[in-house]
Amino acid sequence: MIGRLNHVAIAVPDLEAASASYANTLGAKVSAPQPEPDHGVTVVFVELPNTKIELLHPLGADSPIAGFLAKNPAGGIHHVCYEVDDILAARDKLKAEGARVLGDGEPKIGAHGKPVLFLHPKDFFGTLVELEQV
Amino acid sequence: MIGRLNHVAIAVPDLEAASASYANTLGAKVSAPQPEPDHGVTVVFVELPNTKIELLHPLGADSPIAGFLAKNPAGGIHHVCYEVDDILAARDKLKAEGARVLGDGEPKIGAHGKPVLFLHPKDFFGTLVELEQV
Repeated sequence: MIGRLNHVAIAVPDLEAASASYANTLGAKVSAPQPEPDHGVTVVFVELPNTKIELLHPLGADSPIAGFLAKNPAGGIHHVCYEVDDILAARDKLKAEGARVLGDGEPKIGAHGKPVLFLHPKDFFGTLVELEQV
Repeated sequence: MIGRLNHVAIAVPDLEAASASYANTLGAKVSAPQPEPDHGVTVVFVELPNTKIELLHPLGADSPIAGFLAKNPAGGIHHVCYEVDDILAARDKLKAEGARVLGDGEPKIGAHGKPVLFLHPKDFFGTLVELEQV
């Protein structure tokens, strides 16, 4: 069912410093910071040849990563995102297998403009899993 | 400098259950468990079209992931591994930029039979970074 690893998301307390570190110290290609007010984050995309890293920083009062950074003030790896062809079919299969979908169970339009769902970390060994329909 | 994302490593408390979940619930191709006694882990490789996930479980008394699982008993994302062409050149550049290399600073032969180094998570926003020469 799952296809490519779309991205690894890393929450960081200082987006400018993290972006500079990936660009200069690690020598990767990074984007300009991209505010995503609908998703409560500002994102810097680190473009690798086979996938991307997304550096996330809270934006606004209700950021979904504020709690994570409160628990992990230095930052940390927040989630992995796997691609699926059909997110509704994927959701139904996952629910039939007993996995819990976060929120109301309906796909939302994610930061890339495509339907996404998040799966409960307790069902995936402490890892927050995002599914994105491509 | 960094190239492809070689893998994302996820430490899990129950390797059989995690492997079954990736194979059956997420529908991915998984390998048989592979003991790596020299590295203190047993690994299941989850093969995605563009990269791989490595499910890690402690093996032996001095496993490098035992402490992580003690702090994160449900499991969690342990590290990301980026490929480099020349690990000594990468190390020297990183050290010149002030990044700390774990251990004695000399590359070790990693679980894939290739030279690897680990970088201090404090220098990379709480993320443990492995570099592998390919």
